Amino acid sequence: MPHSGRHFLQIPGPTNTPLPVLAAIARPTIDHRGPEFQALAQSILADIGSVFGAAGPVVIYPASGTGAWEAALVNTLSPGDRVLMFETGWFATLWDRLARKLGLEPEFLEGDWRGGVEADRLEARLRADAGHEIRAVAVVHNETSTGVTSDIAAVRAAIDAANHPALLLVDTISSLGSVEFQHDEWGVDVTVAGSQKGLMLPPGLSFNAVSEKARAAAKSARLPRAFWEWEEILAANENGFFPYTPATNMLQGLRVALDMLAREGMDAVFARHKRAAAATRAAVAHWGLETQCRVDAEHSPSLTAVRLPEGHSADALRAEILERSNMSLGNGLGKLADKVFRIGHLGDFNDIAVTGVIAGVEAGLAARDIPHKPGGVEAALRSLAGNG
Amino acid sequence: MPHSGRHFLQIPGPTNTPLPVLAAIARPTIDHRGPEFQALAQSILADIGSVFGAAGPVVIYPASGTGAWEAALVNTLSPGDRVLMFETGWFATLWDRLARKLGLEPEFLEGDWRGGVEADRLEARLRADAGHEIRAVAVVHNETSTGVTSDIAAVRAAIDAANHPALLLVDTISSLGSVEFQHDEWGVDVTVAGSQKGLMLPPGLSFNAVSEKARAAAKSARLPRAFWEWEEILAANENGFFPYTPATNMLQGLRVALDMLAREGMDAVFARHKRAAAATRAAVAHWGLETQCRVDAEHSPSLTAVRLPEGHSADALRAEILERSNMSLGNGLGKLADKVFRIGHLGDFNDIAVTGVIAGVEAGLAARDIPHKPGGVEAALRSLAGNG
Amino acid sequence: MPHSGRHFLQIPGPTNTPLPVLAAIARPTIDHRGPEFQALAQSILADIGSVFGAAGPVVIYPASGTGAWEAALVNTLSPGDRVLMFETGWFATLWDRLARKLGLEPEFLEGDWRGGVEADRLEARLRADAGHEIRAVAVVHNETSTGVTSDIAAVRAAIDAANHPALLLVDTISSLGSVEFQHDEWGVDVTVAGSQKGLMLPPGLSFNAVSEKARAAAKSARLPRAFWEWEEILAANENGFFPYTPATNMLQGLRVALDMLAREGMDAVFARHKRAAAATRAAVAHWGLETQCRVDAEHSPSLTAVRLPEGHSADALRAEILERSNMSLGNGLGKLADKVFRIGHLGDFNDIAVTGVIAGVEAGLAARDIPHKPGGVEAALRSLAGNG
Amino acid sequence: MPHSGRHFLQIPGPTNTPLPVLAAIARPTIDHRGPEFQALAQSILADIGSVFGAAGPVVIYPASGTGAWEAALVNTLSPGDRVLMFETGWFATLWDRLARKLGLEPEFLEGDWRGGVEADRLEARLRADAGHEIRAVAVVHNETSTGVTSDIAAVRAAIDAANHPALLLVDTISSLGSVEFQHDEWGVDVTVAGSQKGLMLPPGLSFNAVSEKARAAAKSARLPRAFWEWEEILAANENGFFPYTPATNMLQGLRVALDMLAREGMDAVFARHKRAAAATRAAVAHWGLETQCRVDAEHSPSLTAVRLPEGHSADALRAEILERSNMSLGNGLGKLADKVFRIGHLGDFNDIAVTGVIAGVEAGLAARDIPHKPGGVEAALRSLAGNG
Repeated sequence: MPHSGRHFLQIPGPTNTPLPVLAAIARPTIDHRGPEFQALAQSILADIGSVFGAAGPVVIYPASGTGAWEAALVNTLSPGDRVLMFETGWFATLWDRLARKLGLEPEFLEGDWRGGVEADRLEARLRADAGHEIRAVAVVHNETSTGVTSDIAAVRAAIDAANHPALLLVDTISSLGSVEFQHDEWGVDVTVAGSQKGLMLPPGLSFNAVSEKARAAAKSARLPRAFWEWEEILAANENGFFPYTPATNMLQGLRVALDMLAREGMDAVFARHKRAAAATRAAVAHWGLETQCRVDAEHSPSLTAVRLPEGHSADALRAEILERSNMSLGNGLGKLADKVFRIGHLGDFNDIAVTGVIAGVEAGLAARDIPHKPGGVEAALRSLAGNG
Repeated sequence: MPHSGRHFLQIPGPTNTPLPVLAAIARPTIDHRGPEFQALAQSILADIGSVFGAAGPVVIYPASGTGAWEAALVNTLSPGDRVLMFETGWFATLWDRLARKLGLEPEFLEGDWRGGVEADRLEARLRADAGHEIRAVAVVHNETSTGVTSDIAAVRAAIDAANHPALLLVDTISSLGSVEFQHDEWGVDVTVAGSQKGLMLPPGLSFNAVSEKARAAAKSARLPRAFWEWEEILAANENGFFPYTPATNMLQGLRVALDMLAREGMDAVFARHKRAAAATRAAVAHWGLETQCRVDAEHSPSLTAVRLPEGHSADALRAEILERSNMSLGNGLGKLADKVFRIGHLGDFNDIAVTGVIAGVEAGLAARDIPHKPGGVEAALRSLAGNG
Repeated sequence: MPHSGRHFLQIPGPTNTPLPVLAAIARPTIDHRGPEFQALAQSILADIGSVFGAAGPVVIYPASGTGAWEAALVNTLSPGDRVLMFETGWFATLWDRLARKLGLEPEFLEGDWRGGVEADRLEARLRADAGHEIRAVAVVHNETSTGVTSDIAAVRAAIDAANHPALLLVDTISSLGSVEFQHDEWGVDVTVAGSQKGLMLPPGLSFNAVSEKARAAAKSARLPRAFWEWEEILAANENGFFPYTPATNMLQGLRVALDMLAREGMDAVFARHKRAAAATRAAVAHWGLETQCRVDAEHSPSLTAVRLPEGHSADALRAEILERSNMSLGNGLGKLADKVFRIGHLGDFNDIAVTGVIAGVEAGLAARDIPHKPGGVEAALRSLAGNG
Repeated sequence: MPHSGRHFLQIPGPTNTPLPVLAAIARPTIDHRGPEFQALAQSILADIGSVFGAAGPVVIYPASGTGAWEAALVNTLSPGDRVLMFETGWFATLWDRLARKLGLEPEFLEGDWRGGVEADRLEARLRADAGHEIRAVAVVHNETSTGVTSDIAAVRAAIDAANHPALLLVDTISSLGSVEFQHDEWGVDVTVAGSQKGLMLPPGLSFNAVSEKARAAAKSARLPRAFWEWEEILAANENGFFPYTPATNMLQGLRVALDMLAREGMDAVFARHKRAAAATRAAVAHWGLETQCRVDAEHSPSLTAVRLPEGHSADALRAEILERSNMSLGNGLGKLADKVFRIGHLGDFNDIAVTGVIAGVEAGLAARDIPHKPGGVEAALRSLAGNG
């Protein structure tokens, strides 16, 4: 069935890329060893840290986000190293698996996928690790499978309270540029991010913001690494270049995206996402449905995962909405498959779009006879009006 | 203030151009005398008539819509000719003025800008014109200033009932490709249209669909004409070319737009616009506001003009909505300035967008303290659900 | 046959549109009655005059170039008015025909299509017109059919020498933005131009730069006009708007094109075109072929028309080159059909492109067994090197 | 200095991306877990093998080419494994270094950077390896630093002659889609490729075509791997998906690029590159300069590295050409720094562009007073004419 009007890409990333960003990506590729590229790269490298709240370097990879997970580990750790992780959901689980594959020995604190990292449990475990065998704590800031944001400052405080030297590695793939994050202030050692969420680019770039402590750790880390090696990249970056071919056109787009974020201001960006999230939750609550996140303080500003009543298929609902309203929603992942659907409200997004998204979901609920109280849009509108 | 998310261009044209159409327009210009252009033009000339319901020729001008008004007149009429027109609103008024400037003598049947052409009054006037001094009846199908659609078949019937030989010239600038129109079936002699509304292109092309009778009239019509001359264009069109430089890139886009309309099917296109219009009016009625159109059968499927209560400024409301919601609405024109605002719901548009638009308007009404009953979005949603 | 590499559009217009201009045209259409458009239009209206060498107003039409010919005449003249024109080639002939169609009485001084306007003959005719029946002199600055540029300052001087009040109307469609032109300094009353040549846009905009004298003449001019009416447009322009829907997206592109011209500087632009033209003629001379222009001082900087030896088809050569080298050249027009081909070397063009074009032409000459001395590219290169 | 005309990106990759490919990349990102993406991925996965001459699977990474080097090694080898490599130039050297970093023990047969892989030396070494300690032979098909293409069929024959079980890994980063390559026929086990050369895309995708033997080896290979792991990707590919976020927009472009290659036909593509290379070498020879490649049968069809006479700076020449002619050429790498410059003649490229490139280089040689015999363009043209 042909659809009129634009597609609403409301998965929790990749997000709707602004047209000026797409236009910049579509400019002809330039010589990645010439002066025009050099100026582009230098300006990006000067500005990118502000999105992370990092004064230090940010390594940019011509690779999608999963690669940056790998990079954070192989640059800082050695075979058999213990890593303390927390099961916030599917993406924490995948990072744990990836660590195992790389020859690390992660310890995965069990969670129920409905809340964030429990800092007190981390602290207890670290206190118990008197021999400091745990080399790193690796957690997900914003768990994309559940819509739960963890308190990273609290995680830092827990490590400090335990007086533990472990590195703090944080995945901000679905939060960076949407949810407040402070790499330096929160004492993060490696921040992992990707281009296709709050940065409003297509997938294809990923990032490691690195602390001095992380760079120092890299000197003795013995996991084999080449493509992901920080130091070679940072050395080349000194002059505005990269040691191997960068994703030139994506960088052209990144320049424009950074300008857009700067123009709006990071605080305004964060506030806008919170507004959209609150309005979405107001609709969900009005419908009488449950969010996957059940901790009030931990609702994600960038996405909302919604549970369906027993006996209803979230995937069938998503298919209905795609067909009927030309809108893509995120599916349930791992053990949440077919049980939840996820609404992305991040990136290049505004109030009117929020309303349209809620309306599209409600039309789908009605069409699939999923019990709900009509009026979600009005609830969302009231929320938006009250959060002006 | 920087805006996040895309702009909602909800003026009643130009409309939101689909990205594939913009991409086609952005392809490099081709040689307008070469074989690639020839194939492009031939395919367009073969297909364009289906949008008008016309088996005969459609003249394509590299000019915006006002030019096609002029073209319809200068090709068919002679200095001093009488033309019968009907005051449906601002655009009918402008066409009347244009006719006067060209040296014609239009007779403008007075209207109150709240309804369409009154066929019985036309018929009475034509019957009174025993000497057949009136050479043409020129009416606006969809009055963009008021949101009123006139019954063109009834106009035809009136002319026939009066047994009058006048040509029938119809402006479909804001209806073609959105509101049902049948050039042949309704016995229209010249249909005037533009690219920037239902055809979903930027402004820059305009059209005259012409009947045999109109071409015959052109032979004796003595208004001076050159750029607008039909016959030279139609002769060159025989081989897929134009007598002077056409708007090549716009034609590249038109090809894509015609494909999109054909894929959806004109009946589905018309139904989609009616759905959106009904939902919009449901919201307006719920708010307790009045539409400018006050004849039930004549509400336009492509736009709705909304009257504000005495003492409230429609322009201030529009400015508020532009600032707050990044949405452009149409202003009141002529004597409706600042008294009405106009919502375009035409072109590349879908249910979700309708909801967003209504939400944006309602937020503006609230912000400007314009008396209204909240809940317009739900009313619109109920309308959409009932018109599935 | 599929072609690799980009197409070389070397007709003498439309020209190769720079990618940033195409990208600007492909941005979404904006509200032509909103503040963003207003700012865009005001900046264009402030800058466009510099390309014409005009301090006064430039009227911008949403129409291709032929329309601006018509506009120049209908705004300044009355039915039956005499206009003195000069037969420089096909486009002068077309303008003459257009004037006749509009009800004027042009007097067409015969030319052989191999040189420019002969100012002395104009002067003689004007001196003979003691009663000042001639109301306008209308000439083509750069005759696109022959590659001949006329000396407009000399035309002005001739009118002045004859002490004649006729208006001076000049077509600069294929010279503006490529060949030096000075509307004010040369005392031109109406300059006619289009978007698709030196301004590096697709076809779809055209221009009239108008003098005070021309505006004064418009007050008493009685040719019917509406779409082309200057004063209504200029009045709306005062506030950055247009009286009817402008070609919004083309204006978005024009803004970028004007910036590109300003960055290069008009003098550098003119010098670049002269360089390319000299190199092209060096190749033509080396081949032993003849240019259509036979007056040394009058060779066009923007295109070169090349005559083929008797018995050879220019159109077959062009077809060969299109097939073989993916390059479009201009055809012979009117009585030059199949006898000449035209090389456009205007717009977004550089030295390397010149060489490629000459190479493509020479490969075609060889393939079609057209007698020529090989080595045209080297001749062009020597010319470029000598004009560094 | 502002440049007119398009930039000539004549580095040996990234290459000039065709506009339709850029347009496809600039389409909005789609849901990488939805049906539209699935259809896209399935069609690409069905077609991509034909470019490699591979009936088996091709793994597509959302990463640039260096990553695919790493992937080929980590999927097939274990820590401490011996790999036989051949020093064809800078990229062979980098691959050797990368292997070392990953914990392998490459044996690097010395070369002088002026010829290709010497199959007889490989064979001798493999024969001497009676214990089959060498687990893989890893060679560069087309050495981008020197413009030398190695005979991969001969390498295969050498391995077979030595009756050695080593895997054959081949880097085709600057040859795939430009220079004939036959993964299956030549018995290659892993072919490494990138998007930004013959595939005519920007950098950001890379590839491993894998043989059955390579997949079998992967089962016991013990280098840690996660992001680069073949089997997880191939398993997800079965249904048209990827295990982690793919570079969606690049895949949109890849679809268009594959269509362009198929339309031209791989044989025609290879022939076109050979033509351009022969013409380029004809010019170099005419100038009296030397190519870095000194083996006649091994000149690369995709790039030519040119040596400058002692005492002249290749980088200064390149800077001159960039400034003067808006053309980027490749620099000398490693020990060839400042001694050679490299002309890329690959990707979306045609005869006219060849000529322009040669002309631009010759103008630079003259400007920098580098001894050369003028007339390179004519020599190139004669070559092209003779290779029609």
